[in-house]
Amino acid sequence: MDKILRINMGAKGGPEISITPIGEYAGLGGRGFTSAIISKEVPPACHPLSAFNKLVIAPGLLSGTRAAMSGRISIGCKSPLTGGIKEANAGGQPSQVLARLGYAAIVIEGKPEADDLYKVFINKDGIKIEKDNSLRMLGNYATVEKMKEEYGDKIACISIGPAGEMRLAAASIACTDMELRPTRHAGRGGVGAVIGSKGVKVIVIDDTGTTMREPKDHDRFIKANARFIEGLRKHPVTGEALPAYGTNVLTNILNEAGGYPTYNFREGRFAGAAKISGETEAAMETERGGLATHGCHHGCVIRCSGIFHDKDGHYLTKQPEYETVWAHGGNCGIDDMDKIAMLDFLDDDIGLDTIEMGATVGVAMEAGLIKFGDADGAIELIKEVGKGTALGRIIGSGAAVTGKAFGVEKVPVVKGQALPAYDPRAVHGIGVTYATSPMGADHTAGYAVATNILKVGGFVDPLKPEGQIELSRNLQIATAAIDSTGMCLFIAFAVLDQPETFEALLEMLNAFYGLNLTPDDVVALGKNILTMERTFNRLAGFTNVHDRLPDFFKREAVPPHNVTFEIKDEELDTVFNW
Amino acid sequence: MDKILRINMGAKGGPEISITPIGEYAGLGGRGFTSAIISKEVPPACHPLSAFNKLVIAPGLLSGTRAAMSGRISIGCKSPLTGGIKEANAGGQPSQVLARLGYAAIVIEGKPEADDLYKVFINKDGIKIEKDNSLRMLGNYATVEKMKEEYGDKIACISIGPAGEMRLAAASIACTDMELRPTRHAGRGGVGAVIGSKGVKVIVIDDTGTTMREPKDHDRFIKANARFIEGLRKHPVTGEALPAYGTNVLTNILNEAGGYPTYNFREGRFAGAAKISGETEAAMETERGGLATHGCHHGCVIRCSGIFHDKDGHYLTKQPEYETVWAHGGNCGIDDMDKIAMLDFLDDDIGLDTIEMGATVGVAMEAGLIKFGDADGAIELIKEVGKGTALGRIIGSGAAVTGKAFGVEKVPVVKGQALPAYDPRAVHGIGVTYATSPMGADHTAGYAVATNILKVGGFVDPLKPEGQIELSRNLQIATAAIDSTGMCLFIAFAVLDQPETFEALLEMLNAFYGLNLTPDDVVALGKNILTMERTFNRLAGFTNVHDRLPDFFKREAVPPHNVTFEIKDEELDTVFNW
Repeated sequence: MDKILRINMGAKGGPEISITPIGEYAGLGGRGFTSAIISKEVPPACHPLSAFNKLVIAPGLLSGTRAAMSGRISIGCKSPLTGGIKEANAGGQPSQVLARLGYAAIVIEGKPEADDLYKVFINKDGIKIEKDNSLRMLGNYATVEKMKEEYGDKIACISIGPAGEMRLAAASIACTDMELRPTRHAGRGGVGAVIGSKGVKVIVIDDTGTTMREPKDHDRFIKANARFIEGLRKHPVTGEALPAYGTNVLTNILNEAGGYPTYNFREGRFAGAAKISGETEAAMETERGGLATHGCHHGCVIRCSGIFHDKDGHYLTKQPEYETVWAHGGNCGIDDMDKIAMLDFLDDDIGLDTIEMGATVGVAMEAGLIKFGDADGAIELIKEVGKGTALGRIIGSGAAVTGKAFGVEKVPVVKGQALPAYDPRAVHGIGVTYATSPMGADHTAGYAVATNILKVGGFVDPLKPEGQIELSRNLQIATAAIDSTGMCLFIAFAVLDQPETFEALLEMLNAFYGLNLTPDDVVALGKNILTMERTFNRLAGFTNVHDRLPDFFKREAVPPHNVTFEIKDEELDTVFNW
Repeated sequence: MDKILRINMGAKGGPEISITPIGEYAGLGGRGFTSAIISKEVPPACHPLSAFNKLVIAPGLLSGTRAAMSGRISIGCKSPLTGGIKEANAGGQPSQVLARLGYAAIVIEGKPEADDLYKVFINKDGIKIEKDNSLRMLGNYATVEKMKEEYGDKIACISIGPAGEMRLAAASIACTDMELRPTRHAGRGGVGAVIGSKGVKVIVIDDTGTTMREPKDHDRFIKANARFIEGLRKHPVTGEALPAYGTNVLTNILNEAGGYPTYNFREGRFAGAAKISGETEAAMETERGGLATHGCHHGCVIRCSGIFHDKDGHYLTKQPEYETVWAHGGNCGIDDMDKIAMLDFLDDDIGLDTIEMGATVGVAMEAGLIKFGDADGAIELIKEVGKGTALGRIIGSGAAVTGKAFGVEKVPVVKGQALPAYDPRAVHGIGVTYATSPMGADHTAGYAVATNILKVGGFVDPLKPEGQIELSRNLQIATAAIDSTGMCLFIAFAVLDQPETFEALLEMLNAFYGLNLTPDDVVALGKNILTMERTFNRLAGFTNVHDRLPDFFKREAVPPHNVTFEIKDEELDTVFNW
């Protein structure tokens, strides 16, 4: 991981490849890497679809090693959805295989004049880029199938569906999982539109002939990894709840807590929750011959993923995640798990962010386009996106554009990006993260739900403003650092609760790179990344006015607790005072 | 004009009327009035379609008097198109009749819960508000016809078409002209969406039984007005060019100057210009029994308007203005005057800003939706808006949303509002105004074309950056003041060139109100308005990053002069340093 692959899609005579040493970006990984390149090389005021934007794909610092949970990949750019800096993060196989091939990042630059599609093939022998317009408007599943036919099944793919080709602002980038299915998505912020604007349909990576990345101190590393895994296994969230029920274990928990946004954030509890809970989902999966406990990449020991079969026992989609089940489910008043799974499949295949799509369908329901609870109507709306109809282009542009086109006032977005599955009025800490994260509304940027609801890392009362700023601040700093390691964010539960598990993680980094990082260094890294990102955003035109939730959260109390969001604007402005 | 009519559309039990003294807003008119109320009473961060936004309709300081040219009305709100403060300005009759009834402004506040439409009737006896859902989705023409049937023909109407009802961001508010046709539009910034969100379809004003507003010093006022009229008549622009050919006299001039944006700002000269010039248009009007020289309101002595008949000699629309002929014509590569007139009629009837619509059709052409030059395709696109289809909602949301939905990079907007009919590369001064006006791209906010191209008020070379900042600054200050008087902006040609005409205007104000305003006071008023507006925008989230033209104007040279926009960002940031 000492080199950068740069592909200039705008070069005269076709795409131009250059491989450069990691240079000034040495020591960075994942989000730290993507945000550093975007900050340094992309003009903040440029159009996100212009030749001046760059799409950066970076494995984490520990990706491609024997470290458990190290398979996350970061994808960064200037976001067409928010207009600010973006890091979207996915699981699946690409991070590990790219890292083993030695690439610290792929940077896709420039923009071709003609409207051709390209595929990129990377293996130990080098890089090949070919025009391939036969891929046009293929879904992610068909795209990956074609790649398998061409390159065999020892590959990992990074691809876009029709949404990315159409440069829609809710377009995701798909990463294949262990079964070589395009189910793990860098979902947020329209990263798929940016790679689409550059004409890259798919990147195929084959790490045949490579080996695990080797640590500087092998024994020390192996021991630390063992302690790390032990820590994950003994924590109730990563050792029991997530493996058993997946992320969707949260449905019952958030619903119980009254923080489960229902009917486009009108209520905090959903009557149909039990029908779409993780417990129900896992039972359906097991019963139909799917899989309730499964990893999304080699080296995962939490195994919160799964495989969802339809009623006839045929593969339909991967186990829909909590955020997806909420977005397409409770948020839209839909309690039919099969329909939600179909929506998950459609989003994955067309290449769309499930959170943004669920929120957008909710806004369409608010506009009266279809009724709350109309699952078939929701499926039709997502299909419209795949077809590229005018309505599909509205929906595929996300909740903010849909709200604008239909004159809707109640649109749950921050910086143009839809809010995830926790009502900020009933879970104040996550509201602070939504409002202030440089990414726009993003639960993963500082998951205060852990401490507000799950009582991980202590407890801060979710219904009160006290302590939330500090909570979100600390989590945002920690997350920026974790997102740089390639580690799955779910390690945070154990890391927050168990000092020895955090130490094991630090020990792994030190053993691998021959460093002596302290906890203070980790904090400094997180702050440094956030500062870069906020500086980019400021230069792109963001001010503290953009670090706010939509007005209605302050005015409309949400049942059952009948609370509003009580944190003052002036307090939000102190999140990054450190 | 010493009272304010406030209508709270959100009151329990239906709309609530209150008439309050002008109080702290005394001495303000037009844009000064609207921007003061918005600044003081509307939370800058509120949603433009929320109950917290207000729609302010204000005649100018001299409206309703014997002063020539005093029929402009200002309509202000927080704009759903730009997200900033907005003053859109229209001719026609409402300003005069409202002023004579004594209203300094109508302020429409709140938001009804139900989705009903209301009509407001104002005469000397008071105000009546009635629910009238029979008006739903009527065009402006049919709406006015219905009002004539109900209230007779001694009325003036302020109304919206389907676009405003649908709360589309390019929706205008129509004002009726002397023939009681809805042809004079407060076009820009989506003011129609804001009144639409409040459920007000039409305001009918009948000034029967009122008299001209009387000045404090009658004789002094009458004399000043005579000198003022004399000045307008002797200036070549207001005395000859505008009466003979209307605003569209500019087509040949700008085309000759190479500053006529063609094919979505790809070129600065249009091969078909002669076919859609003011000269051609006037000849067609005269030949077909229309009218080439006509005023848009009583008291107009320039008479730059006209009436456009179709091939069979039947009324089609008012004389399409230069900006409209450009937007739907040259900008889209269309050189068929009849088709352009049809587009003008459709925009007026559906209630859409012609500039935004032409620019949006240009972006749709850029996206390949229809071909450049396809006039019938353009007509169909505008009809889609009237029908409220998904495609229509994209188009009706303006150029920025259309660009986003179709993944187009080249979108000519500033602060989300489409650029008017002058290429900023070939007319640098107007580029400064586009970039920095608090209104978004707006030629009327500081019409540097006058000095760059028409050599009015001196001459500043349009192709060079030198002197443009100061030019735009001075014009923006002067314009903010003029927009407060109710005076048509076209008086500026004579006022800029002839000191005695400016003095006559000042004399009218002083004679009317018994004041001793000096030129310095006028400058202070203009600066004060701009400062209020910029403060509102800052609190709404705007920074100097938003005071920029789209990138491509700096990168792509425009033929025939092959110039780029050469004014540096740092220079743009000095426009409001006074």
